[in-house]
Amino acid sequence: MENFNYYIPTKILFGKGKIESLGKEASQYGKNILIVYGKGSIFQKNCYGTSLYQQAKKSLEEVGLTVFELPNVEPNPRIESVYEGAKSCREHKIDLVLAIGGGSTIDCAKAIAGQAKYEGDIWKCYETKDPRPLREVLPIASVLTVSATGSEMNGSSVISNLSCHKKIGLTTPKFRPVFSILDPSYTFTVNQKQTASGCVDIMSHIFEQYFTPDHEGYLQNRMMEGVLKTVIHYAPVALKHPDDYEARANLMWASTLALNNMFEKGKVLTDWATHQMEHELSAFYDITHGVGLGILTPYWMEYVISEENHHRFVEYGREVWKLTGTEEEIAEISIRKTREFFTSLGIPSHLREVGIGEENLEVMAKQATRRGPLGAMKKLYEEDVLAIFKMAL
Amino acid sequence: MENFNYYIPTKILFGKGKIESLGKEASQYGKNILIVYGKGSIFQKNCYGTSLYQQAKKSLEEVGLTVFELPNVEPNPRIESVYEGAKSCREHKIDLVLAIGGGSTIDCAKAIAGQAKYEGDIWKCYETKDPRPLREVLPIASVLTVSATGSEMNGSSVISNLSCHKKIGLTTPKFRPVFSILDPSYTFTVNQKQTASGCVDIMSHIFEQYFTPDHEGYLQNRMMEGVLKTVIHYAPVALKHPDDYEARANLMWASTLALNNMFEKGKVLTDWATHQMEHELSAFYDITHGVGLGILTPYWMEYVISEENHHRFVEYGREVWKLTGTEEEIAEISIRKTREFFTSLGIPSHLREVGIGEENLEVMAKQATRRGPLGAMKKLYEEDVLAIFKMAL
Repeated sequence: MENFNYYIPTKILFGKGKIESLGKEASQYGKNILIVYGKGSIFQKNCYGTSLYQQAKKSLEEVGLTVFELPNVEPNPRIESVYEGAKSCREHKIDLVLAIGGGSTIDCAKAIAGQAKYEGDIWKCYETKDPRPLREVLPIASVLTVSATGSEMNGSSVISNLSCHKKIGLTTPKFRPVFSILDPSYTFTVNQKQTASGCVDIMSHIFEQYFTPDHEGYLQNRMMEGVLKTVIHYAPVALKHPDDYEARANLMWASTLALNNMFEKGKVLTDWATHQMEHELSAFYDITHGVGLGILTPYWMEYVISEENHHRFVEYGREVWKLTGTEEEIAEISIRKTREFFTSLGIPSHLREVGIGEENLEVMAKQATRRGPLGAMKKLYEEDVLAIFKMAL
Repeated sequence: MENFNYYIPTKILFGKGKIESLGKEASQYGKNILIVYGKGSIFQKNCYGTSLYQQAKKSLEEVGLTVFELPNVEPNPRIESVYEGAKSCREHKIDLVLAIGGGSTIDCAKAIAGQAKYEGDIWKCYETKDPRPLREVLPIASVLTVSATGSEMNGSSVISNLSCHKKIGLTTPKFRPVFSILDPSYTFTVNQKQTASGCVDIMSHIFEQYFTPDHEGYLQNRMMEGVLKTVIHYAPVALKHPDDYEARANLMWASTLALNNMFEKGKVLTDWATHQMEHELSAFYDITHGVGLGILTPYWMEYVISEENHHRFVEYGREVWKLTGTEEEIAEISIRKTREFFTSLGIPSHLREVGIGEENLEVMAKQATRRGPLGAMKKLYEEDVLAIFKMAL
């Protein structure tokens, strides 16, 4: 096991009605709150007979906080929204940036909290993947409404700059939310496509940390298999019964634990090639992240499996899919099972199905590898990424 | 899934050589440090060619800290040591209580940190299991040398008062260490018996949270199976090759995660009957905690299994022991497998083997249930506890 430091101080308030604690938690950080949200789902009537917007405002205002707003944050949030939010933070002397929404909204709130305290252009930090210029970052918190990215408990933020077709992630402990409210009831209204792609995203986060060429991280791998089994068990339930609390709760907590950094601690390497390839698809075509991951993952598996690493697919097949047979059969079938599961959730299996043709494959492959080869299971150079994109067409 | 709040801010420094960070971490809390340790193993020459005592002193003194000492803390630490340590804290204006040792030492350090800031007698808090009088507690940290109790990342402390044959646990977030250094190399010298009983303790912590009558906590149960598989995989390796770093590292991180409160979050109930029964054995006979747990656990399983809960043993057998067959067979064999595994580690299977006869069974059963029936899988009253003790004779 590799040496590591572990420090995950985000406070999680999980469960039905936890929004009532919002005001009290938020008031620990100051008086002026910027709430950041998307395009309207928080105004929908929810299972509490009101809207999340009203619940949040009520809880914040009851304790005397002043609420400012940044609405209309995009899926694949844009750098322009970050600049706008940061301007608002300075104008209104914001003490806490509170995201209400899914991963995109939380990622945007993180960048806003960074830009608000930074004189330079935060996009440069994303482009160089270097958070060090961000000496100070406003406190960040979230009320989660989609189970997918894990942004609610980690220090990562992915921002898109469509003007240059770039979607880039930046990670710093300063981006870790101080608290997050996770009420699974808020995900009852997440539609089939978003539910399915959220589940793929959770599984992909696990795959990126699970599929590594080494034998180290035995404990972490066994626990990650538990997360995969949970998603495989409950994703179909949530699709069939969108208001099944137990299914939504397991998926929500799985999404948070899958990427709060716990599992990567002690592993020598993690992979992340599939995520980096998908970021190019989203940057060029603005597709749903989980859909892109769902298309690419099984092709990535087929491409990278080799003599040296196929024991990892055997473990995966045996533990997660309960496969028996020869090692060769188990490894092969485990990949097929993965594809079949994604398909059963309604995820496409070809790029053409989401409007992506051959036109940009080469430039996307070039851009994906501009900082060097991707991945750990197998180092992927430009031509490898192009080959995977072509397999996925 | 039940509502919960999750906040686990202990910083973990895990791996080879992490002791070098001790001084820097400790200096954040003040100038005067009380180091609390046991009966001499920290003076032994270790794999770094020096002793842990020297390494710790060097790191603390290099940054200008003043070190005071409380040596000779007992396994099953006594309330008298707590009083002595607290007195030293007051005399020397201690800023941080640093345990160097296993769970007993850390538990003692927690009680010391509480007593130091409390005018009353902390034993009363243990007796009433009520931490509320402890308004303030000194910061606690640890350097772990035995993988077992999880005390290095949780808020629990178990103290013994042999004058009244009582061993009682007290839990408060104020007892959670601010940081813990986990270097698996320090466990190379843990002997066979302590290694084995540590492994049983880890598994028992999982069992107490895993075996619950409800169907909730699916994710938690699947992750806990991962911890059990890890201990089953690596315990024999550590016994055969005491300096196998990978085995020791997996066991150490497993011990910490098994009881840092993560797994109980979201579960409706946890059990803890076996631990409470074992506390009576230790209180009356001062036996090794893990040995007591290892003897009792399979008898507890046989006693509590029923129509209503036997699906949990089927899950356990299938997932952890890879059993196939009818549900009845799997449930039954899973218990037998548990006993056989403990036996393979050298753990006795009868109370008589550790010097416990019939003489105190009744009074121990009475005392174990003095605050009401134990457990969740099946409520255990005085006569049930007595029956289990008799099965275990």
